[in-house]
Amino acid sequence: MTYTASVVGASGFGGGELLRLLANHPEFDLVQATSRSKDGKTVGYVHPNLRDLELRFSSPEELDSVDVLFAATPHGVSMTEIDRYRDAADTVVDLSADFRLPSEDGYDEWYDGHKRPELLDDAVYALPELDREELAGADLIASGGCNATATILGLLPLVEDGILDGDERIVVDLKVGSSEGGAGGSEAASHPERSGVVRPYAPTGHRHEAEIGAYLGLDVSFTVHAVDMTRGASATCHVFPGEPVSKGDLWGAYRGSYEDEPFVDLVAGGGGVYRYPEPKAVAGTNRAEVGFELDPGNRRIVAFSAIDNVMKGAAGQAVHAANVALGIDETAGLTFRGLHPVGAP
Amino acid sequence: MTYTASVVGASGFGGGELLRLLANHPEFDLVQATSRSKDGKTVGYVHPNLRDLELRFSSPEELDSVDVLFAATPHGVSMTEIDRYRDAADTVVDLSADFRLPSEDGYDEWYDGHKRPELLDDAVYALPELDREELAGADLIASGGCNATATILGLLPLVEDGILDGDERIVVDLKVGSSEGGAGGSEAASHPERSGVVRPYAPTGHRHEAEIGAYLGLDVSFTVHAVDMTRGASATCHVFPGEPVSKGDLWGAYRGSYEDEPFVDLVAGGGGVYRYPEPKAVAGTNRAEVGFELDPGNRRIVAFSAIDNVMKGAAGQAVHAANVALGIDETAGLTFRGLHPVGAP
Amino acid sequence: MTYTASVVGASGFGGGELLRLLANHPEFDLVQATSRSKDGKTVGYVHPNLRDLELRFSSPEELDSVDVLFAATPHGVSMTEIDRYRDAADTVVDLSADFRLPSEDGYDEWYDGHKRPELLDDAVYALPELDREELAGADLIASGGCNATATILGLLPLVEDGILDGDERIVVDLKVGSSEGGAGGSEAASHPERSGVVRPYAPTGHRHEAEIGAYLGLDVSFTVHAVDMTRGASATCHVFPGEPVSKGDLWGAYRGSYEDEPFVDLVAGGGGVYRYPEPKAVAGTNRAEVGFELDPGNRRIVAFSAIDNVMKGAAGQAVHAANVALGIDETAGLTFRGLHPVGAP
Amino acid sequence: MTYTASVVGASGFGGGELLRLLANHPEFDLVQATSRSKDGKTVGYVHPNLRDLELRFSSPEELDSVDVLFAATPHGVSMTEIDRYRDAADTVVDLSADFRLPSEDGYDEWYDGHKRPELLDDAVYALPELDREELAGADLIASGGCNATATILGLLPLVEDGILDGDERIVVDLKVGSSEGGAGGSEAASHPERSGVVRPYAPTGHRHEAEIGAYLGLDVSFTVHAVDMTRGASATCHVFPGEPVSKGDLWGAYRGSYEDEPFVDLVAGGGGVYRYPEPKAVAGTNRAEVGFELDPGNRRIVAFSAIDNVMKGAAGQAVHAANVALGIDETAGLTFRGLHPVGAP
Repeated sequence: MTYTASVVGASGFGGGELLRLLANHPEFDLVQATSRSKDGKTVGYVHPNLRDLELRFSSPEELDSVDVLFAATPHGVSMTEIDRYRDAADTVVDLSADFRLPSEDGYDEWYDGHKRPELLDDAVYALPELDREELAGADLIASGGCNATATILGLLPLVEDGILDGDERIVVDLKVGSSEGGAGGSEAASHPERSGVVRPYAPTGHRHEAEIGAYLGLDVSFTVHAVDMTRGASATCHVFPGEPVSKGDLWGAYRGSYEDEPFVDLVAGGGGVYRYPEPKAVAGTNRAEVGFELDPGNRRIVAFSAIDNVMKGAAGQAVHAANVALGIDETAGLTFRGLHPVGAP
Repeated sequence: MTYTASVVGASGFGGGELLRLLANHPEFDLVQATSRSKDGKTVGYVHPNLRDLELRFSSPEELDSVDVLFAATPHGVSMTEIDRYRDAADTVVDLSADFRLPSEDGYDEWYDGHKRPELLDDAVYALPELDREELAGADLIASGGCNATATILGLLPLVEDGILDGDERIVVDLKVGSSEGGAGGSEAASHPERSGVVRPYAPTGHRHEAEIGAYLGLDVSFTVHAVDMTRGASATCHVFPGEPVSKGDLWGAYRGSYEDEPFVDLVAGGGGVYRYPEPKAVAGTNRAEVGFELDPGNRRIVAFSAIDNVMKGAAGQAVHAANVALGIDETAGLTFRGLHPVGAP
Repeated sequence: MTYTASVVGASGFGGGELLRLLANHPEFDLVQATSRSKDGKTVGYVHPNLRDLELRFSSPEELDSVDVLFAATPHGVSMTEIDRYRDAADTVVDLSADFRLPSEDGYDEWYDGHKRPELLDDAVYALPELDREELAGADLIASGGCNATATILGLLPLVEDGILDGDERIVVDLKVGSSEGGAGGSEAASHPERSGVVRPYAPTGHRHEAEIGAYLGLDVSFTVHAVDMTRGASATCHVFPGEPVSKGDLWGAYRGSYEDEPFVDLVAGGGGVYRYPEPKAVAGTNRAEVGFELDPGNRRIVAFSAIDNVMKGAAGQAVHAANVALGIDETAGLTFRGLHPVGAP
Repeated sequence: MTYTASVVGASGFGGGELLRLLANHPEFDLVQATSRSKDGKTVGYVHPNLRDLELRFSSPEELDSVDVLFAATPHGVSMTEIDRYRDAADTVVDLSADFRLPSEDGYDEWYDGHKRPELLDDAVYALPELDREELAGADLIASGGCNATATILGLLPLVEDGILDGDERIVVDLKVGSSEGGAGGSEAASHPERSGVVRPYAPTGHRHEAEIGAYLGLDVSFTVHAVDMTRGASATCHVFPGEPVSKGDLWGAYRGSYEDEPFVDLVAGGGGVYRYPEPKAVAGTNRAEVGFELDPGNRRIVAFSAIDNVMKGAAGQAVHAANVALGIDETAGLTFRGLHPVGAP
């Protein structure tokens, strides 16, 4: 069976990746791509990799009736438009933060409140490695945030295995690419200013701390740096466990959580050039690389996690979640392996 | 029907891409990957995007019997080993220069001669947009060189349409990525020295002039610059036609050559950010972007052509040629569309 | 003796470099920096390398009386404001195109005409290697354009030595950095879209052809590509001389023009990693690297020229010209040698 | 008075910067540059920014008698050659780790022991912001390590002000450029593999922890990542103080330590594009940018520090130390302000 699908907010970076994934997905039939600013233009006008698609952006005011609607709009839009989305589609997958947090309190604390708090209970947070079971059959899906996803994947095994119990001090230092700033252009994002930076763009108080707290039960100290790549989010999690652990304990925990996961690879030491998780090794894919190192002198675990923020941190995760929700093969449409060599993708 | 396939020289960049393409190809079954230097290691040790493949490099001394053998060895190896390759496989696709030129003379002039000149007549040069018909059923295929491919695709319509007759002065100025230097590392290729360059690495006398002369019938003045990207070859062809031409003439010529080609997109002006061929727009794909502009003041045609040197310029073209030779759907295994946004892939 | 100096349009890239140069210049005393958009802010707010300067942008409406005023405003501003500039300063050095061309015709053809054509005779085009003598004592100086400067320096010896007489076909293929687009930000200039490109941003019809024609007497076919660097302009000039030349002839011509020039280094072959002119080797400096190669098969000279577009192509050249005009040591304030290694400056 | 100076190990990156600084230094006269591998070649053969210097590498076997010898050799060489160095020069400034630690124990724990432990008491560790007084008159100077320097400058005010007492848990997450790997080239350092990375190259156990412990009295958990720049070391120090602190406390501490320092700029919030320390803003200079942010939710101080590893982390710091030791103006030869804009220097 084939499902019809649409993308609202399709001229942004996440929306463009959704178009790419859906156009080649064996179980989806892409029927609509909306963009207020690019209404009427071909999708290839904005996304040069989609020049051969015979599809034009249409206005978000008129939504086709589809099986699945993917919303890749800025934060705040989905909570306003959600009734129209749900009228148009049986299943709505939202890539914004609008339905990620479990309760209104979180939106009051971290965002500007919520317009439809009564829907938060219906929404299922999508990070399939964390809550695959709840996603089956879900009809309102909130795809996890990019930096939260990288962090949760790095720390999840330590929680599942009981190495962490929530009282530990945890520092998460992220390095991310320029696509996290979105499409459009600004002085700070311009190539002469943005290239080559190590820019602390969210030194403290990043909103993704809220997702990590809500779904992982950990209180993390989060700092995000912009570095010179376009795609990618790399989380380095510095963890001080209450009890000493061995490398064997860590291998046990990480293998226990991930050995059957189709999109997680363990990369922890070993030989060759690529010994730890590396964002460029997963660019363009829905894969995460996760690894760790033990620092005996400081009784510290250093957990590493690398994803493509536009894919595993946005469009790929959304399609993965839709696959799970609809009972399709989880990897359908998501089998691209990434490139080697690749520069700064 | 499925064909068994092997890759000789699989630890290099072209070899790695062949592994990636064959592993996901619907009609090929990848059975062997050889590497003298990495014998025994997993293919993922070298190519991090292939970590999940359960395949180890084996010695090139013992070749499995397969339907198709792809040779991605340095120039000079295939002409020495060709009998072993042909004993092991019904079809041999060679990615080196060893069987590209039509006659021994060319090897005497541009290389260090040839060891098996009697085989040059058997070999079919592979650039499917140029000679698709000859490739059908071929059993010794010489995949076109990366810089030659970019150039030929940029100029072919001008030849096919009769705008050029071979007497014109043509300057081809290429900009290429660091993967053209191959894997391994050297001082000149090291990141501190290589990043940010506009390095004239082949100011004159590049060997691909020979292929262009042989197959396009044009005498080109060729200069190659290394620029800061890993993948990509962008050819800017400055052409001074004998008779004045109009933009309409050019559109006619380029559409005539390429409108039915599955892997060539015309990009010539228009709006948006991507108005002319751009290597990063085709990175990871087997597509070429081709375009042109007319300079009335100088009676000059400027033809642009952009490819991924590791794909359309090597592994992708080789698989494309094998598809044609075996009668498989031409696009099988080559449907990846590339990424947007992408940095310097 | 010390000269007072001001910079109009000091928040742009060229203006920022002027501030840096003047602040450390032994013979200048920087007294004013204007910026309409950043009026009142410290110069370090915009230019982080100047944080320690105790200087704030002031409005361009009130100009201090100075010895030398440098105007780094967009094209079209200087021709409107020129009387105010000349009232404020004995010597005006304009970095825009407004006074570069020798006659009104050029502005009608290449720009939108000229408001003060009667001043064009007064203005001296500044490219000291070309016309040092005319600059002595000049009080209205038009600093040469970046891409024109790179090109003229590459070809000047061929003209001075008589190898070229103006009838030859000359292709100039430039590769330039993102600072040529100026400060501010736009979608095309944003890091995700701009990084890693080989973008033909002026395929034909670049206005600097006019300067080259006017001052070098050559008709060139010009194409400019944006590549992944912030600073730098690299000109590759493909020249087909009427008579055969030898490498010895070329060495004679280039040494003849440049052996006494303080800011030109000849780099033509030789060993090591840096064998030809390389923009990153001159980044931050007022130096040009110039070199050449001979292509006997095509009877072609390939001349290379690399500069920092913001320095030798703008602020450095302007200060150099002011030094000459005022009779100061030519190299005063311009002795920075550049960095090694350096990435993509 | 002018001092004669030589550089041993002058073909490496640190050695090249020493040559550049000494060649333009008002109080030094550069007389010798040694290199075993490049003996006889001009210094410009290796360092293209020094092409105009008329100086050739000589063998390290024959050292000229000079006032100051700078040793930029790999770790382990200076401790072997130290008698020869001291015979040749009144003052020896060593840029390697060989004389940095205060006692033999440190070398046993972190390195392969020490050959001349009796000299460790004579050597003065050079980080002038930390121990300017001890450097005056010193004749054996051990210039601080790059990553240690970045970290110490970030944390020093917290120690001097008593906010930290040595018992706190401190995570230091560094991002560094490819020049830290040194000149030469290897597969891991090659452009295709190295560009665009976020590579945890020293996940734990980096030797600079020893310097930080010895001179700052803090036990830090150190992780170093390679990112896509050539120069630069950026330290993000996550600190959990025992007692709550306010932003006012932090401003007091940082101003108290640095307001009179010629090479330290405080950058902590504010407006514009550059709000926190940024390595590219100090590239090519001896300056450090230091700043901080307070995370009230986690009772965390995040201290940032950015330097150019080849300058403030090596050659610049060595010249600065020599200036102090000899009683020269501290900033002599070190006044270059850096560039804006600049890409990934």
